[in-house]
Amino acid sequence: MPLNIKEILKKKRLYLDGAMGSLLQNRIETIGPVPEALNLSQPELIKEIHQLYIDAGANIILSNTFGVNGYKLKDSGYTVEQLVTAGVKNVKALNPDYTALDVGPLGTLIGALGEVTFDEAVDYFKEIISAGDKAGADLIVIETMTDICEARAALIAAKAVSELPVIVSMTYEENKRTLTGSDALTVVNILEGLGADAIGINCSTGPDAMLPIIAELVRYASVPIMVEPNAGLPHMKGGKTVYDITIDQFTDYMVQIAEMGALILGGCCGTTPAYIEKMKGATKDLLLYQVTEKAFTAVSSSTKTIILGTDIHIIGECINPTTNPVLKASLRQGELSVVTQLATDQKKDGAHILDINLGLPDIDELMMMQEAVDTVSRLVDCPLQIDSSNPEVIEAVLRSYPGKAIINSVNGKKSSMAAIFPIAQKYGALVLGLTMDETGIPSLAADRFAIAGKIIKTAESYGISKKNILIDALVLTASAQQAEVRETIKTLEKLRAELGVPTVLGVSNISFGLPNRELLNRTFLAMALEAGLTTPIMNPSDREMMDTITAFRALWGFDGQCIAYANAYKDSSFGQAKSDLERTALGL
Amino acid sequence: MPLNIKEILKKKRLYLDGAMGSLLQNRIETIGPVPEALNLSQPELIKEIHQLYIDAGANIILSNTFGVNGYKLKDSGYTVEQLVTAGVKNVKALNPDYTALDVGPLGTLIGALGEVTFDEAVDYFKEIISAGDKAGADLIVIETMTDICEARAALIAAKAVSELPVIVSMTYEENKRTLTGSDALTVVNILEGLGADAIGINCSTGPDAMLPIIAELVRYASVPIMVEPNAGLPHMKGGKTVYDITIDQFTDYMVQIAEMGALILGGCCGTTPAYIEKMKGATKDLLLYQVTEKAFTAVSSSTKTIILGTDIHIIGECINPTTNPVLKASLRQGELSVVTQLATDQKKDGAHILDINLGLPDIDELMMMQEAVDTVSRLVDCPLQIDSSNPEVIEAVLRSYPGKAIINSVNGKKSSMAAIFPIAQKYGALVLGLTMDETGIPSLAADRFAIAGKIIKTAESYGISKKNILIDALVLTASAQQAEVRETIKTLEKLRAELGVPTVLGVSNISFGLPNRELLNRTFLAMALEAGLTTPIMNPSDREMMDTITAFRALWGFDGQCIAYANAYKDSSFGQAKSDLERTALGL
Ligand SMILES: [Zn+2]
Ligand SMILES: [Zn+2]
Ligand SMILES: [Zn+2]
Repeated sequence: MPLNIKEILKKKRLYLDGAMGSLLQNRIETIGPVPEALNLSQPELIKEIHQLYIDAGANIILSNTFGVNGYKLKDSGYTVEQLVTAGVKNVKALNPDYTALDVGPLGTLIGALGEVTFDEAVDYFKEIISAGDKAGADLIVIETMTDICEARAALIAAKAVSELPVIVSMTYEENKRTLTGSDALTVVNILEGLGADAIGINCSTGPDAMLPIIAELVRYASVPIMVEPNAGLPHMKGGKTVYDITIDQFTDYMVQIAEMGALILGGCCGTTPAYIEKMKGATKDLLLYQVTEKAFTAVSSSTKTIILGTDIHIIGECINPTTNPVLKASLRQGELSVVTQLATDQKKDGAHILDINLGLPDIDELMMMQEAVDTVSRLVDCPLQIDSSNPEVIEAVLRSYPGKAIINSVNGKKSSMAAIFPIAQKYGALVLGLTMDETGIPSLAADRFAIAGKIIKTAESYGISKKNILIDALVLTASAQQAEVRETIKTLEKLRAELGVPTVLGVSNISFGLPNRELLNRTFLAMALEAGLTTPIMNPSDREMMDTITAFRALWGFDGQCIAYANAYKDSSFGQAKSDLERTALGL
Repeated sequence: MPLNIKEILKKKRLYLDGAMGSLLQNRIETIGPVPEALNLSQPELIKEIHQLYIDAGANIILSNTFGVNGYKLKDSGYTVEQLVTAGVKNVKALNPDYTALDVGPLGTLIGALGEVTFDEAVDYFKEIISAGDKAGADLIVIETMTDICEARAALIAAKAVSELPVIVSMTYEENKRTLTGSDALTVVNILEGLGADAIGINCSTGPDAMLPIIAELVRYASVPIMVEPNAGLPHMKGGKTVYDITIDQFTDYMVQIAEMGALILGGCCGTTPAYIEKMKGATKDLLLYQVTEKAFTAVSSSTKTIILGTDIHIIGECINPTTNPVLKASLRQGELSVVTQLATDQKKDGAHILDINLGLPDIDELMMMQEAVDTVSRLVDCPLQIDSSNPEVIEAVLRSYPGKAIINSVNGKKSSMAAIFPIAQKYGALVLGLTMDETGIPSLAADRFAIAGKIIKTAESYGISKKNILIDALVLTASAQQAEVRETIKTLEKLRAELGVPTVLGVSNISFGLPNRELLNRTFLAMALEAGLTTPIMNPSDREMMDTITAFRALWGFDGQCIAYANAYKDSSFGQAKSDLERTALGL
């Protein structure tokens, strides 16, 4: 049975080792182009350093395999399997508590703009991790990642080829984001979705600048947090790189970090066995933080995360060829310019999330969807909702999407849940559940609510927790199914009161077939918001609907002290003016 | 202890006698200008006729006092006390089950347009009823009333000077309304409010045309219903008035009427002891209808009743000098033209009920209010809400108001309830209860709800049932008390779920101090309606608010099949057009 790192961390902190590179620099003249070749050429030297860390009290020793990957080793004369196997064996030979396979970045850009595609990256990581698993590592530490795309590729690879626990650790810049712009919440949301067993921060700036990021990681994560700071910032001194934080200073920070709730502690560049030893001594008896399950529902792009239900969030509905002939024509010509225009316009008009539906019978939906998601993701920071009736399209898009998307949609039919839930589980996506099933759309709120319950229960059987489910209470038209308008509202109220899930409605369906649709739409929207609608799907360029949301936010306290409201309308004194005009007309 | 007619009617029907006049016509040449003088001049003749009815099975014998009143007897040489006393004694001498004092109309118009003021009318009726009570009548039958004003005056007089049970019976025209326009529901709502022990229909057209009116009386009344038809319609035949319905036909109708639920049966013009005897024989063993308490809350003018909570009803707020300088100036000049203009405008714009507030420190509020209520009542058929901080003003207005008004307002303060509830109980008014008390306006919904409960409980201790209470959940401004917006909405939801009372809000308070007030007002209105607001107080000329109500009615099923909605906007295709324009602008 693989190591259960979460269980161990309920009872004690775990300590990692410190830097390998810094100690090697002191022991040999030049390290050479492939530092990990030392695993083969000087195994005793490598083991000596590992042993120093074991003696210092480290429980987890990282194999000397940080730079080992197929991309870097191309034309080096070494194979990944060769160096990984040797690296892991050098640790295992010393019999530490746990041997970790160390996995670093490939050293190149990934994705459409880089030299390595997402799938190629996954394959590179699979090669490393398969080798490490085979060589007998107890866990995998993916670290010093600067790009959430690459971290995802590595984690997906690990989950595909190994059952070992995986810690994924990223580095952050001064602006508290990774090099490619992900903030701590976004990292947590994406990596937890993909099944990371612990999440870390390493290298980066010194421990002081890490503190606010660690606070966020602990606040949002339902898994343990690993922290491995450098010994401060590097300086050149007498031709050598030295670090500016002393052992005592480092220890003081690590005490603080342990008290914040980090459970796996170690050191990165510049740290030595002395740092680890002193730090362990100062922290090992501190009260142990217990990781709690965080129940929020959040959707992420690579750079932005929205916690649903904390405010009203608008899903822009406009990227959908069914209702847009211009979009339809452009897609048939393989053109994405209309899609990108709609994306930027909706973002500008106030959409928080963009639904992307390219369902046309006569196009290559899979290819167009991947390209559209990729293009839109680079253009706007809104998280996406992937809207397709084809599970293959959904899976292909989710695999490389550098965020945590919403799948639109699953419903209560067995076949739908069987097709969608495995994909959602694998890629950590949110799922929008429609309250309908084999029997159609129930008239009564109680029956729609029951389907919501069935969807959530079935999702749980696939390992998808309730917090990954949104529920659409379904809007029928007032003209054809008037009695069911109340049922939709009641369904929202029941969902809010009894399940607490974020709720979704395609609001403007309500008015189909009636005149003055804006009036019905805005009135129904206000009612639905009051009843608990958190996430309307709508056209953000509909001014009356957006005004209604602005007003609702002021009335419901989402807009504290009505500041956004007052700003939005401070110049539109037409409201008051019209009222005064009417009073004058009445002779008042 | 006075007779408990309701208790008796739980166990058996009661039978009244038939016509007196028709039998007298057959026995003496000319009856003379004061028919009731026969009580003194020919008591044996009168007693002979009473005895015939007793022999026919009548339980209740009406004294021969229909035309006895101070207005008619002026200069006649007789006093009311003289003729009433003789009339009652003539019945009592025969020892029937029950002796009823018969009270007919004064025979002239009452009120500002008539020869007799409302208070004078009350005094005339007090004189009759005092005399009848003193002479030993068991109950009072006020009958053949054509004007709800006069029926009210008589009933108020009866309750003021006597503890005897009172039956109030009116006559109806072919259009199912009384001569002055009151329908059966309105009559029930007003007379029950004033404490009538039973309500009747008599004389009128023949029994056939009475059937739909009886159905309404039974459906709405929480007191027993009395029915006394004529023997059909009168015709002249050989110089004599004859009636066109035979005893058998009359009996058939009365069987039907008994089966509909009427519990006190008798005959009016043209009926004879033979009619009563046969009718009693045919109906006395029919299954006895049990009167049930009807729980609806209804507000009435003399010609229109609105059952609150069955739809959205708008209380027009515009007759209020605080917010209207033109009105203020006109009132200071003793002018009511602005009041009447505001009344007709608000009615035209869709108000169902009109609030009348003339609270100005420097006018004679009592006099102006009486005049305004009187004038407005003749001009528009909307029921009124009497809005004054002075209980004396409220009492004076309610006394003569020919409807069942709403008192605006009581609150949870002991002093407020002690001042208002006795007035409401006496005149059968509805009361609008504000959810505030000695501690101010509570922040939390639970506390406002508790005050509503206290108001209802205290009202019950004054003999005012819950159905006479409306509750105002109180709107504070979003700008100053943002957190309490939710509490107002929650209060509405709690009131709907747990008390089921009609709810009131002064909606536009919400936006005070913020720009674009219409937007906040209409959004808040939609939310409040969804949460259960039944009776908004608002300006019916506010187009956006009225549109919101039209839309809500379509969405909530009050507007069946959205017919009113579709009609209201069938020509305003601007809604769709604007949307299309926006789509074009987006390049869609
Ligand atoms: Zn480092
Ligand atoms: Zn009659
Ligand atoms: Zn609600």
